[in-house]
Amino acid sequence: MDDTVRNTPTIDLNSDLGEGFGIWELGDDQAMLGIVTSANVACGFHAGDPSVMRGVCARAASRGVAIGAQVSYRDLAGFGRRYIDVDPTTLADEVLYQIAALDGFARVAGSAVRYVKPHGALYHACARDTRQAQAVVTAVREYGGALPVLGLPDSELLRAAERAGLPAVPEAFADRGYTPDGALVPRAEPGAVLTDVDEIARRCVGMALHGTVPAVDGSTIRCPARSICVHGDTPNAVAIAARVHRELTEAGVPVRPFIDD
Amino acid sequence: MDDTVRNTPTIDLNSDLGEGFGIWELGDDQAMLGIVTSANVACGFHAGDPSVMRGVCARAASRGVAIGAQVSYRDLAGFGRRYIDVDPTTLADEVLYQIAALDGFARVAGSAVRYVKPHGALYHACARDTRQAQAVVTAVREYGGALPVLGLPDSELLRAAERAGLPAVPEAFADRGYTPDGALVPRAEPGAVLTDVDEIARRCVGMALHGTVPAVDGSTIRCPARSICVHGDTPNAVAIAARVHRELTEAGVPVRPFIDD
Amino acid sequence: MDDTVRNTPTIDLNSDLGEGFGIWELGDDQAMLGIVTSANVACGFHAGDPSVMRGVCARAASRGVAIGAQVSYRDLAGFGRRYIDVDPTTLADEVLYQIAALDGFARVAGSAVRYVKPHGALYHACARDTRQAQAVVTAVREYGGALPVLGLPDSELLRAAERAGLPAVPEAFADRGYTPDGALVPRAEPGAVLTDVDEIARRCVGMALHGTVPAVDGSTIRCPARSICVHGDTPNAVAIAARVHRELTEAGVPVRPFIDD
Amino acid sequence: MDDTVRNTPTIDLNSDLGEGFGIWELGDDQAMLGIVTSANVACGFHAGDPSVMRGVCARAASRGVAIGAQVSYRDLAGFGRRYIDVDPTTLADEVLYQIAALDGFARVAGSAVRYVKPHGALYHACARDTRQAQAVVTAVREYGGALPVLGLPDSELLRAAERAGLPAVPEAFADRGYTPDGALVPRAEPGAVLTDVDEIARRCVGMALHGTVPAVDGSTIRCPARSICVHGDTPNAVAIAARVHRELTEAGVPVRPFIDD
Repeated sequence: MDDTVRNTPTIDLNSDLGEGFGIWELGDDQAMLGIVTSANVACGFHAGDPSVMRGVCARAASRGVAIGAQVSYRDLAGFGRRYIDVDPTTLADEVLYQIAALDGFARVAGSAVRYVKPHGALYHACARDTRQAQAVVTAVREYGGALPVLGLPDSELLRAAERAGLPAVPEAFADRGYTPDGALVPRAEPGAVLTDVDEIARRCVGMALHGTVPAVDGSTIRCPARSICVHGDTPNAVAIAARVHRELTEAGVPVRPFIDD
Repeated sequence: MDDTVRNTPTIDLNSDLGEGFGIWELGDDQAMLGIVTSANVACGFHAGDPSVMRGVCARAASRGVAIGAQVSYRDLAGFGRRYIDVDPTTLADEVLYQIAALDGFARVAGSAVRYVKPHGALYHACARDTRQAQAVVTAVREYGGALPVLGLPDSELLRAAERAGLPAVPEAFADRGYTPDGALVPRAEPGAVLTDVDEIARRCVGMALHGTVPAVDGSTIRCPARSICVHGDTPNAVAIAARVHRELTEAGVPVRPFIDD
Repeated sequence: MDDTVRNTPTIDLNSDLGEGFGIWELGDDQAMLGIVTSANVACGFHAGDPSVMRGVCARAASRGVAIGAQVSYRDLAGFGRRYIDVDPTTLADEVLYQIAALDGFARVAGSAVRYVKPHGALYHACARDTRQAQAVVTAVREYGGALPVLGLPDSELLRAAERAGLPAVPEAFADRGYTPDGALVPRAEPGAVLTDVDEIARRCVGMALHGTVPAVDGSTIRCPARSICVHGDTPNAVAIAARVHRELTEAGVPVRPFIDD
Repeated sequence: MDDTVRNTPTIDLNSDLGEGFGIWELGDDQAMLGIVTSANVACGFHAGDPSVMRGVCARAASRGVAIGAQVSYRDLAGFGRRYIDVDPTTLADEVLYQIAALDGFARVAGSAVRYVKPHGALYHACARDTRQAQAVVTAVREYGGALPVLGLPDSELLRAAERAGLPAVPEAFADRGYTPDGALVPRAEPGAVLTDVDEIARRCVGMALHGTVPAVDGSTIRCPARSICVHGDTPNAVAIAARVHRELTEAGVPVRPFIDD
């Protein structure tokens, strides 16, 4: 492998999948598995029953999509979107339970859990709550295999992962606005969510090629993402994700699982 | 190892452990882990939250007690004691989920899930329901490692395990009466449950030394158990289990995990 | 009220509504509430969280749609579609819990629970399982108000309701085939489910006007329904339900809640 | 009724009851129902299945103990002891669901839900979180009957109840220490929990007769409780509760439900 190839930036596309439960479905897993390179698979605590988990693991493995454990607070009724002040010891146990359960299905599919990403309110808590972030990392470390942890850049989660000797993988969001200091624009403010598919695709290419993105004030900021999170729970979102993938490819950026780098 | 030693019968004592949930406790796990050689650990579907699972796995591993996955219908409210007409595909997925989740804690404790035993209504269904028995065995086989399956002698479960090439381990019950044809006396009938500690201990020694037990009609029947199930959810039950262990030892029967044979 | 008016047959259309849970949605409640006259509202045991229940009760009440408690086994993961061998005492308590909880939202909406219909596997069990049917009726009777019970004609459920002095309301299914002896054609057999909208509408008019329906063998059988169950969980089903309503109206059959008769 | 009688202070003793779930039991409900005058009955969200609810309602009603709805976050695994950042609309719906469900059993027992008290983390959140406190009160008001709300003195909960025109009932804790400004001593600090039965009983008599209690610094502070919360989940706690009841009675303070005042 020569330098040219080695220095070509690559990017990973990740998405939340397997978020149905029982009779209920959410998102178009089939379509997204043809687009993304990493699947954040729900593990039964915010969504995802065992049959959903088996199905998405099987399809991800057969397509070469990396399987990640999307671990969550225990909260089916709230889809893991409400902060729960669970003590870190309990949280670590719950995270370990979820990783291990998903790994069973990933292994049956001929793959394995290759990374861990917190879901919803736990994801956001792990940005600033040192104890909960540490609990997640403790569970990942205990489970073994030095699994990478996917999270917000400059978060307590990634710092805890680094301290534990685990790969800490920063991600960006395809359709979210950023403040000049690199934080996400709060959802209640203008510019929080982008909907223009041209703009979204253009930003993603910039993130991948240059590691930068325009902030809401027009300035250019650093956006050190090795993975970009795309959503798939609306028909339009699937189209956006497909477009992002195509433009990245056309820009010469290989779209492939970050775990392969 | 000479013939004398090789021919000495050994017996395993198993018990249901880790059956608390959240604030609620059930049974005296600590006491039982000093008596039994195999722990049927609840996996979260009828009892057992992640912290309970971690705790009992850690203590079992440190004492050399074999960890088994006590898999169940999804039924916390009914403690897994109600038959559920779940389709075999879903059941297999649920069993796989439970084994894998428990294995995470067993491995963190330096051990692993060493066998699988269905719990409650699933245990009884697996005696005669070919499809549910097969579903349990399918999950065990898929999980890998050729884990032994513990169940009722002459049950669909053990037949399915044998067909799948898995060790099929018959167990007896220390405190249950048997009919002349080797079935358990139904709980509504006289002689279903034994309470006399002398009688229970004497029967267990007979099972271990001779592979026989007296039936309710006084006849002597075959009882081909490699493991004896003892209960631990009452103070008296713990005393009975301890007595059974002592009398087996005094009779020269090594009490040790069946997985070590 | 003169004889002509009194003798005009009326018919009720009922449908299962409020079957989302948390983030997950199912069916088009809004569309169906413009068509049906009775809403079988899920009470949280197979579907339906408190916010879903409040919403559907409010909308049903504002449209004059009668609110019924669609009581179920405790089985979110299986959507109440698996038979559970729950003991009748527990079942009665669970049914009472569900009726009372829904009644809270119905009353806040200015209405009340006006009838009870078992859901899914419990519905089918109540056709033949005397003890579970009696448990449901016991709960209804205890709750008070002599609420009508909606069920399969000639079922244990309706017989138990009659014995208890509760109105027993037989229902028919718009899109299901019937055997010559009045039972539903099993789903695995030809003719079990009808999809031709003309045929479905024609059959419903026949049920309402004459109390008869063609069986799968072409014979005409009695179908003594005071209510017809229509489904709403697919776009096509909504169109079918609307067509049924329109043809009944055009045939001069008033479509109105059975509880108003 | 003359002035002497009218001015006699009375006191209510309340306790958390019905906190088992399925096979699991917690506390000695039978013993406590012979001591307390108000039962805070779990409604299924942190504990309490329908059969437990029916049982405790029946026994409370037969003994003349007032039934209160002990409403909680939806959190069986955490026994309602973890703060959940649930949005107020959802919380109000969940509280209404719980009150209504319990009322079903209370009415079957010939009584009714007579008051509402939040449980665990929700209780503590309602001391300071205006939105969650308001959500609880909204549900109580909507349910109707102007049910009293039991809570911490000077809490957002009681203020919201007063604004809504509901009786706001302050309670004290028999076995907790108070700071000079009337707050509970945090559990991590010395003097947080009292264990001396003489001291506890003496304090309760002082609360009832004079509306005062000694603070941890020895000063005497106002403690305007119309109800005193006693615990019953340990054998010793039952003995303490019984002693408190006896000493109050011997001091001439009628112990009776606050709802009867």
